[in-house]
Amino acid sequence: MNKAFLAALEEEIRCLDIGQNPSELYDPIHYLLSLGGKRIRPVLCLLTYSLFKSDWEKQVPAALSVEIFHNFTLMHDDIMDKAPLRRGKQTVHEKWNDNIAILSGDVMLVNAYQYLNKVKGLSLEAFQHLLGRLSRIAAEVCEGQQFDMNFESRGDVSVEEYIEMIRLKTSVLIGFSMEMGGLLASAPAEVSDSLYRIGETIGLGFQLKDDLLDVYGDPEKFGKQPGGDILANKKTYLLIKAFEKATGSTLALLEKWVAATEYDASEKVQAVTAIYDSLGLKAETEAVIASYFDAAFLEIQSLAISEEQKSALVKFMSGLVDREV
Amino acid sequence: MNKAFLAALEEEIRCLDIGQNPSELYDPIHYLLSLGGKRIRPVLCLLTYSLFKSDWEKQVPAALSVEIFHNFTLMHDDIMDKAPLRRGKQTVHEKWNDNIAILSGDVMLVNAYQYLNKVKGLSLEAFQHLLGRLSRIAAEVCEGQQFDMNFESRGDVSVEEYIEMIRLKTSVLIGFSMEMGGLLASAPAEVSDSLYRIGETIGLGFQLKDDLLDVYGDPEKFGKQPGGDILANKKTYLLIKAFEKATGSTLALLEKWVAATEYDASEKVQAVTAIYDSLGLKAETEAVIASYFDAAFLEIQSLAISEEQKSALVKFMSGLVDREV
Repeated sequence: MNKAFLAALEEEIRCLDIGQNPSELYDPIHYLLSLGGKRIRPVLCLLTYSLFKSDWEKQVPAALSVEIFHNFTLMHDDIMDKAPLRRGKQTVHEKWNDNIAILSGDVMLVNAYQYLNKVKGLSLEAFQHLLGRLSRIAAEVCEGQQFDMNFESRGDVSVEEYIEMIRLKTSVLIGFSMEMGGLLASAPAEVSDSLYRIGETIGLGFQLKDDLLDVYGDPEKFGKQPGGDILANKKTYLLIKAFEKATGSTLALLEKWVAATEYDASEKVQAVTAIYDSLGLKAETEAVIASYFDAAFLEIQSLAISEEQKSALVKFMSGLVDREV
Repeated sequence: MNKAFLAALEEEIRCLDIGQNPSELYDPIHYLLSLGGKRIRPVLCLLTYSLFKSDWEKQVPAALSVEIFHNFTLMHDDIMDKAPLRRGKQTVHEKWNDNIAILSGDVMLVNAYQYLNKVKGLSLEAFQHLLGRLSRIAAEVCEGQQFDMNFESRGDVSVEEYIEMIRLKTSVLIGFSMEMGGLLASAPAEVSDSLYRIGETIGLGFQLKDDLLDVYGDPEKFGKQPGGDILANKKTYLLIKAFEKATGSTLALLEKWVAATEYDASEKVQAVTAIYDSLGLKAETEAVIASYFDAAFLEIQSLAISEEQKSALVKFMSGLVDREV
């Protein structure tokens, strides 16, 4: 099923219904969307839609709106983060320039609404609810990015603040992608709400897994050298937790590495990873991820869908947190 | 009437229904919207709505969507143009920074859709048509900005290309603002289309008037010294037309001033203005503006509205091109 969703989505992306001219504006959109990715969000939307209705093909364009929105956030975040690479290729602002990345991103956000507008057959009320939810989620994702930027210059970010930031920046869109399938299928409101919570909860685990993989990922499978976050002193769950738990000489060592301006990259990665290890942070983070997964699993069990459907959903969701890439 | 529209719009802006936290994200939105401006676009929307229905108050939130959208484009354009001032005050990226201006602008674009979503009482089809039109216009405005940026590095921009650029960057939104009033009032499609064309045509005159005022505006009334476009070698209608018409020593002089890297600012403004004068460009541009106004006037006459309503519309439209600020 997921393969059929993916194939339909890729075909829709290949024939993207957006403008052409000027090419400086539209080429970056095609470029970024063609870099691939797992299309998790629109697949989730089609997956939850399929829990209620079989004619998922007609929702492919609407489902694409969350993928286009997600890629819009990547294009703009990469400018703000001055990121040189995205999925192993040049970012848009590197390949073109900042202004083009700003403006192409703006058009992408508009494109996301244009694709949502391809939904047919809902009542006005249901459609406006859907539009209002996407917009609310979109604003929250921006709020998450702003909190993330604010954290860069703060030394006192708590674990709670970090979790709230990743909830906004990452989880709400995963939650919405699942909720949207329910809304498109006119599922009962409490079911769509439940789907949102399942996605939001799994989204937290998904992001913590990202933090873990950046340190502990297998370079061959992960496609990049581990430790990027460590070298950038990025306030990940691991670093915040380390500052919370470390004491004495361990804390002093961590502070030394974070403050260091001249160092050997691999030496810093090894040293900070060793601190994480000594504090048992890998196991602790994995336990937190598992607890998010368990909460989502319980909520899936409460859905009024068949056991077979529950299994399919659980299988897909566990793929989001058990992954090695 | 227009005063009542303006008062209602200002009140709606004062109580803006957007997020609060983080303040870095939302303060710039309140700041930019509070800098004032003539609110031409939402006033036009309420004005055309009032041609058909009297209960315009209920459309104030929806009308605000075009003002919020317009201000979103200002926030992002100012980053791209590295503009220090907007309405005599610091631009958002100057007062805060580029990243905040990017992200606040993104939220503003979302806010524009949220305000459009406050429309009630249309059919799904009519609402989706409205949403589709706003989105198409939004993409066109971005296309116009990209053409404008492309023109900076080109020496061969034709008058036709320039007119198409300002049509996209400025006129289509003025056209849409007028069309939107018709769509909200469920006016016949050909009437809404006609309102769009009137606004689009006047919008061209509006922008050419801007180009004129930047050279010939009364500094006391205009609130700034004339010649900003001349000093920046901005490819305005006047400069493009001057290159088209100038020959011999006049062309050589114009080329000298455009290529000059060290010069006295007021001397350059005086010299280029003198070239414009010698080529009769002020009168010619005024004639072109008048022809746009005449075309819009004719289309207004063909509308199935009362003579009194036609006069009110003509009066407002002439204010857009006869203005001194």
